[in-house]
Formats: sequence, structure tokens, C-alpha cells
Amino acid sequence: MKNRLAAEFIGTAGLVCAVVGSGIMAERLSNGNAGVALLANTAATGAALYFLIVSLAPVSGAHFNPAVTLVNLMIREMDSKCALGYVAAQISGGVLGTAVANLMFGLPALFPSTKARTGSGQWLGEFIATFGLIGVIIAVRKQSLPVNAACVAAFIPSAYWFTSSTSFANPAVTFARGFSDSFAGIRLVDVPAFVVVQIVGSLAAFVIFRWFHMEEGQ
Amino acid sequence: MKNRLAAEFIGTAGLVCAVVGSGIMAERLSNGNAGVALLANTAATGAALYFLIVSLAPVSGAHFNPAVTLVNLMIREMDSKCALGYVAAQISGGVLGTAVANLMFGLPALFPSTKARTGSGQWLGEFIATFGLIGVIIAVRKQSLPVNAACVAAFIPSAYWFTSSTSFANPAVTFARGFSDSFAGIRLVDVPAFVVVQIVGSLAAFVIFRWFHMEEGQ
Amino acid sequence: MKNRLAAEFIGTAGLVCAVVGSGIMAERLSNGNAGVALLANTAATGAALYFLIVSLAPVSGAHFNPAVTLVNLMIREMDSKCALGYVAAQISGGVLGTAVANLMFGLPALFPSTKARTGSGQWLGEFIATFGLIGVIIAVRKQSLPVNAACVAAFIPSAYWFTSSTSFANPAVTFARGFSDSFAGIRLVDVPAFVVVQIVGSLAAFVIFRWFHMEEGQ
Amino acid sequence: MKNRLAAEFIGTAGLVCAVVGSGIMAERLSNGNAGVALLANTAATGAALYFLIVSLAPVSGAHFNPAVTLVNLMIREMDSKCALGYVAAQISGGVLGTAVANLMFGLPALFPSTKARTGSGQWLGEFIATFGLIGVIIAVRKQSLPVNAACVAAFIPSAYWFTSSTSFANPAVTFARGFSDSFAGIRLVDVPAFVVVQIVGSLAAFVIFRWFHMEEGQ
Repeated sequence: MKNRLAAEFIGTAGLVCAVVGSGIMAERLSNGNAGVALLANTAATGAALYFLIVSLAPVSGAHFNPAVTLVNLMIREMDSKCALGYVAAQISGGVLGTAVANLMFGLPALFPSTKARTGSGQWLGEFIATFGLIGVIIAVRKQSLPVNAACVAAFIPSAYWFTSSTSFANPAVTFARGFSDSFAGIRLVDVPAFVVVQIVGSLAAFVIFRWFHMEEGQ
Repeated sequence: MKNRLAAEFIGTAGLVCAVVGSGIMAERLSNGNAGVALLANTAATGAALYFLIVSLAPVSGAHFNPAVTLVNLMIREMDSKCALGYVAAQISGGVLGTAVANLMFGLPALFPSTKARTGSGQWLGEFIATFGLIGVIIAVRKQSLPVNAACVAAFIPSAYWFTSSTSFANPAVTFARGFSDSFAGIRLVDVPAFVVVQIVGSLAAFVIFRWFHMEEGQ
Repeated sequence: MKNRLAAEFIGTAGLVCAVVGSGIMAERLSNGNAGVALLANTAATGAALYFLIVSLAPVSGAHFNPAVTLVNLMIREMDSKCALGYVAAQISGGVLGTAVANLMFGLPALFPSTKARTGSGQWLGEFIATFGLIGVIIAVRKQSLPVNAACVAAFIPSAYWFTSSTSFANPAVTFARGFSDSFAGIRLVDVPAFVVVQIVGSLAAFVIFRWFHMEEGQ
Repeated sequence: MKNRLAAEFIGTAGLVCAVVGSGIMAERLSNGNAGVALLANTAATGAALYFLIVSLAPVSGAHFNPAVTLVNLMIREMDSKCALGYVAAQISGGVLGTAVANLMFGLPALFPSTKARTGSGQWLGEFIATFGLIGVIIAVRKQSLPVNAACVAAFIPSAYWFTSSTSFANPAVTFARGFSDSFAGIRLVDVPAFVVVQIVGSLAAFVIFRWFHMEEGQ
């Protein structure tokens, strides 16, 4: 169990470090061209998801995301004590990831973001993003690990662009990004609504994709 | 059958939502730099095709495209009643996808596009795009699902750039994009000619690649 | 044999159409930003190589390149009559590809390029590009088809950026690009020197990578 | 042994040629848009890692990096004499790679870089970059070669963006980049500190990921 939690901790730290670090770098290099900045942030995030999932899935399943852990709890692939441990590792790992990214770029380790992200359009965006992410994870669970990783690493970059919220889709990462002031950040006051919508999106995906599952008779 | 239709409905909705949503996001972030906007739209579309096909092909075959369904009908892999159901699911799913994308970005759910797309150059572009797409699908049908998905997810982004029409290559997606006003849109009055050329391109690919097929003696 | 030649013809046409078409589109959309234009051209070319090789390698081996055919001739995997047929199919297919791309974008089918490409720096670039391409093809020949295709589809886009000539590395494609006036073009008068260097690079790769081969004792 | 050293020499030369050459090309084409330039450099480097590792791993293991060789020495997969040969091949190959890139673009073969890279933020960046790279390599060592290559080819491009140092993570490549004056360069006086941090990062990854390894009971 100890190394499963360590894998969730390191993996979520790595993921958030990639998202926040590439957000800072992209903002600094893009001379105000937000399209170029988001392209770079997108590529760095997608690539990070791929190598993190392939690296750590054999140890912990590579959730890095409380919404994924919640679904695993509901389909009884883990018990609630283990799930709580995962979520704690994800949240603390995520915050460490932001701190490492900030320190690398000469910023204070942790400070609250001022980037506003609110409103029904963005909440619909987060619903779609988390619904899609969980749906994909359930749908591809019988594929090989590299294909699995490639699907998640394709979904998030795509959803960075097609959802109005740029697809956080992950409560632990959302909270951790509350401490970054680049365009990858989110005000801490806007975090709870995002998390609520993410949980609702996960549950909706769970219901619908379990129905597909049963129809397949598996 | 019910879940096959649901998969076509959700998959086409997801595909159109990715195309239209990333089109809106790209237009807003790119400060009039059309090259950067199309790069982002390209990446989001290609990634979406990959995860949607891997996710839903085991359920419905992941057509998401009446031209693909037509070819499957001709090679007798499905009957005409099933094909009609697929096309209905694709068209309605596609329109839902546009509506979701528009709502996420604070636009009315559905309104007619004003983006003109017409003329012999663009029609030749659509012929090439659909000919190529159907040709690739026929040629790689014996590869594994992930390779199959990767080939389609490589073809469309490439054809976004190398065809003058930016490669719609899909009657249901073309119709659905008639309700988006970003650069990803198309005037409803321009849709019928695109659809006709797409069907002609599909039939041409069917004839030529079936000849390859027979020569292989399979 | 007939369908092998047809596959080389269609495949080379598709490859050149992708290179030239995306070159024209990129130039039109990028407002003079040559970096963005080459990124788009790069992505379209790499993706096209992937789906074309996976699609057509089972039929013809997917050479699409007289330098590749030359190496196959030298290792006795084909006879000289067949090799000549391949080269003829590649050259004629390549020219058709340029014509289709030009017509799609409202240009005359074929007209000579005015883009100068000459000098020792560019010739060294073409030597490196073709040496690397042939080296990679020899080195990965025992991998599966999709991995094979991915390696070629990784090499050419990379070499577009790291060689001073933007990596033509293919006599048939070089000649065909002599009829495009976008940044993807090359003056017909500059073609022969490129072709000579490409052949020299192929032979150098053949000698060096065959030595690796023998050392492996295969 | 001779062809193993040749593979390390050619592979490291190819890697550095791709990094430095695409750096020069990107700088020339991007009109001062540093974001676009780094995107191009990133794509060219990632693609080069993929085809070089798949091509040469069957011969030498495709280290191309003294930090990787050091880890292989510690886990007793090679002896110290062989490791020294590898490092010599990597350093000399890397310098050749810079020279070839410079010559292709009409620059003197070798001249010292003036690009300053120093300070605790960048050193933390290099620590993270090398820690991550070695961690990934250890974690994915039981995957197939193409997946292995894809993970490294995903890590480095991602870390180009998420680390403040743009992720050199390789003593031989760092030294070789000391002779390039594009944004891909580094002053020779800044090289030793980078190399020290890279070795510390490798050792840290070795300790932590070996612990994961033992817990798995393998």
C-alpha cells in the first residue's frame, strides 16, 4: 500500500508540475499570443499524462485524480479506506507539484491565484470535460496499458481546446492550480463549484457507460 | 442495437463538439492568426478521433459518418435498416454536439452559420478528402483497433491542411457545422453540394480500394 | 505487379499532395509567420506518411521514394525491372499529387517553381536527411508495420526542422515539388543537385547500416 | 562492442544535430516569437528521440546520455570499462552533432555559445528534469521497445516546457550544446553546474525508483 500511495503522490505532483510549469513558461515565451501559449501547455500536459500513466499504472493504477478514484470505489475495485488514502496523496502531491513549478521559475512556492473561472458556461465545460474523461477511462479499460494511456493523453489536450473551461476535470489538480498565477491558475474561491460539477460529471459518466457495459453482457 | 445507436449518437456528438468547440476557442485565443487557430483545431480534432474510435468501436464500429456507414452497407457488413438508424443517430448526435459547444462558449444553442464554402476548388478538396478517408479506412481494416484509430486520427488532421476545404469528409458533421459561426462553420446553403461530393468520393474510393482488395486475393 | 505499381502511384501522389497542399494552405493562413507555416506543413506531412505507409505497405512495401527502391534493389529484395516500374510510378504519381494540390487551391495544375534551393549548406542538409531516412528504414525493418511507419513519420518532420534544406530526401518528391510555388517548392534547375546528393546519402547509409547488420550476425 | 560504441556515437550525434539544427531553423523562421520557436524545437527533438531509440536500442540500448549509462552501471547491467567507452562515444558524437548542424546552416563548425544558463531556479529545473527522465526510464523498462521510446520521447518535449532550464537532462548533450549559439545553446562556463545537478538528479531517481522496484518484489 505504501508504494501505491507514493506513486499517486509522485504522479499527481508530476502532472501538476507539468501543467503549471508549462503554463508559466508558455506565458513568458508567447508575447501575449494566447493561442501559442495554450498549444504549448496542451502538448506538455498530454505528453506528461502519457509517460506518467505508463510509468506508474503498474504500481497504483495511475489515477492522479479523485474523480477516477471515486469511480474505482463505486465499481468496488478498491475499498473506502484505500480511496481516502489515494485522495490525500493526490491533493498533497498536487500542491507539491505547484510549489516545485513556482520555485523553478523564481516565484514564491505557494500563493493564491487571481485567475477568475466561473459562470454557467465554464461549469458546463467542466461537466463535459469530466463526463468525457471518465467515459473514456471506462470505455478503454480493456485495452492495453499504452493504448489506455494514449487515450487519456489524447482526451485532455483535446478538451483543453474544446471545453470553455480548458478542462480541469480533476478535483486535486483544480485545487493545486489554485496556487498558480499563470493562465493555468484558478482563484481558490472558484474551486468548490468546479469540484462539484466534476463529481456530477463523473457520476453521470459512470451511469451511462455502465449501461453500455451491461449491454455488452460482460 | 440500442447501444450501438447510442454509441453512434454519443460519438458523433463528441466529435462535432470537439471540432466546433475547439474552433471557437481557437478563434478567440489566436488574435486573428488563422494558422495558429487551425493548428489548434487540427490537434483537438485528431486527438478526439483517436479516443472516440478506441472507446466506441467495440460497441458500434465507430462510424460517426454516413459515408462510412454507406460503405459498410455496400460491403454487406450491415443491412439497410441498421444503416438508416446509424445515419439518424449520427445526424442528431452531430447537431447536439454543435449545441453543446455553442452553449459552453455562451452562444445560442443553434443558429445558422454565415461562413461561405463553395466553388470547384473546395468541391475537389472534399472529393479528395472523402476519397482518402474511405480509402484509408478500407486499407487498414485488418490492422488492430489502435492502429486503425491512429490512421483515421492522422488522416483528418493532415487533410485539414492539405485540402482546400479543410476536409469535412462527413455528411453528418458537415450538416452539424452548419450551425456554428466560427471558422469551423459552413453556410447551410453550401451543405448539399459538399454532401454530394462526399458521396461521390466515397463511391470512388470503394471501387478503387476494392480492386486492391481483390488483387490481394482476400 | 499491377496493384503494387498502383499503390506506389497513389501513395506518392498522396504524399506529394499532402506536402504541397499543406504548404499552400500554411502559406495562406500564416500571415508571413514562416515558423507557424512550417509547423503546419510538418504536422500534415508526418501524419500523411503514417497513414499512407500503414495503408499501402501490405501492397507495395510503401516506398514512395526512388532512394528507398534503390536500397531494396541493392539488398536484392526486388529485381531491376520491378525497380524501374516503381520509380516510374513514383515520379508520375508525385507530379499528379502536385497537380491535384494546385487545382484544389485554384492554381494552374503545373507550373515551374521559382523557389531557389542551392548551395553547399543545403546539399549537406540533403545528404544528412537522406542518410538518416535510409538509415532509419534499414534499422527498424524488423519492427512491426505500425512502428515502422511511426519511425518514418517521426524522422521526416524532425528533419524538416533540423536540416537546412527542410529535408526533401526523395528524388520523386523533389521533382514533383518543382511544380509548386509555395515555400514547399524548389526550382527545377536546383533539382538535379538535390537528387545526386540524395543518392550519395542513400549509398552511405546502406554501407554503414549494413555493417551494423552484419555485426549483429543476422 | 565496436558496433555498440558506434551506435552510441551516431545516436548521440543524431540527437544533438536534431536539437541544435532545429534550434537554429526555429530561431530563423520565428521572427522573434520564442513560443513558436520552442514548439518547433520541442517537436523535432521528441520525434528524433523516438526514431533514434527504436533504431539503435537493439544495438547499444540507446543511452545517448552519460546519466543513463551511470544508472546502468549501478544496476550492474554493464561494467565500468564499457561504461567509459559509452560516455566517450556520447561526448564525441554529441560534439560532431553540433558541428554538422552548424555547418548545414552556414556557421563555423564549433564556436563557444554565449547563452547564459545559471541560477538556482535553473538548477532545480535540471534536477527535476534528470530525476524525471531517469525515473521514467526505470519505471518503463519492462514495456516493449516502442512504448519505451514513446515515453522518453514524451518526457523530454514535456520537460522542455515545464522546467525552467528547458530540460537538458544529459551531460553529453549539455556539453555539445556549449558550441551552439542559438537559443538551444549554453555557455561552456555554465556546463559544469548543470552536469553536477544532472548527476545528483539521476542518483535521487535511482534510489527512489529502486525502492518502488523492490516493493513490487521483482
